[in-house]
Amino acid sequence: MRNKEFDSEAALKDALATFWQHGFERTNMPELLDSMGVGRASFYNAFGSKREVFLQILDLYFEMVRSHLCGLIADANDSRHAVALLVDGILNVAKSPEANATGWRGCLIGNTALELGANDPEIVSRLKKGVDILRALFRKAIALPSTSGVQRSQLDIDQAALQLVASVQGLLVLAKSGLSDADIKSARTAILATIT
Amino acid sequence: MRNKEFDSEAALKDALATFWQHGFERTNMPELLDSMGVGRASFYNAFGSKREVFLQILDLYFEMVRSHLCGLIADANDSRHAVALLVDGILNVAKSPEANATGWRGCLIGNTALELGANDPEIVSRLKKGVDILRALFRKAIALPSTSGVQRSQLDIDQAALQLVASVQGLLVLAKSGLSDADIKSARTAILATIT
Repeated sequence: MRNKEFDSEAALKDALATFWQHGFERTNMPELLDSMGVGRASFYNAFGSKREVFLQILDLYFEMVRSHLCGLIADANDSRHAVALLVDGILNVAKSPEANATGWRGCLIGNTALELGANDPEIVSRLKKGVDILRALFRKAIALPSTSGVQRSQLDIDQAALQLVASVQGLLVLAKSGLSDADIKSARTAILATIT
Repeated sequence: MRNKEFDSEAALKDALATFWQHGFERTNMPELLDSMGVGRASFYNAFGSKREVFLQILDLYFEMVRSHLCGLIADANDSRHAVALLVDGILNVAKSPEANATGWRGCLIGNTALELGANDPEIVSRLKKGVDILRALFRKAIALPSTSGVQRSQLDIDQAALQLVASVQGLLVLAKSGLSDADIKSARTAILATIT
């Protein structure tokens, strides 16, 4: 089709950045089109709606996060180190100089859950996939050998992974509520201390 | 003033329920006026703007949560029991049958942090107060005598309180991402197990 001359992959990446920074509702159409560098007609032709783009950028985000974090722990060979790499990896991804109120844009999974997760079943079913990706990454990290020689059952691994995902998401909530850097650092230390 | 004939306290409570369920951006003016049962002229006369009402309902929420949770632990005399009362108190407040995608409307502090905390310094400075209220409640609970005889330093109490607030907020993020009831229950158990 002639009017798909723009690079739709690049346009989606730009849309991801915009939605991540401002959320679904606060991103209006002119802003979205502007950030994607596409005209209105091309946009509707290629994507159909703002919501459809949002669903696509959620998938793009999940894949980006999965591949980035997976790479971070690819060479790790002990559980505690791998968990620290994941926690710091998520925190780093969640920082943004453009988030001028706190310096944190957060994780798009958490942001979307708290913006839309009360009333939007289709979004929730997408978000489950994102949470499952994070849980699987932490399970993989925790299942690595422990330098302190701890043996973990599959149940222990599952529970610790869930707990770590919750703690990191919770820390991002507090970071976006204006938690001080010192408190963020201390909370990070406490999270890592749960894995021996 | 003649046009303040409506009960502005009751109207604010209704506004709180609406903003809590739908978030700041998704609540449009007709919906807000309708839920508050006030006309446009009375609304602008009494409150000035949607944003001004939102700031007021944040304060109302903080006070409501503080007073409710404070009451829950008023008679508690051991730390573990008091922490369980607070965790369950927050989870109960965050449930809502009207949140039809997940059954969870979440905590308004966390919801607002993730919706607006990247770009809105005025909101962030309000949210800090809300987080401080939660931290103070958990400090109070953890400082109670421990049935297992553990003695905690002030630093330990502060860190555990911060960790508990983060864990509960994180659990609400996952609840609004569609976490199963079984996983929510297991995460709750793990949170409580951090306090001996």
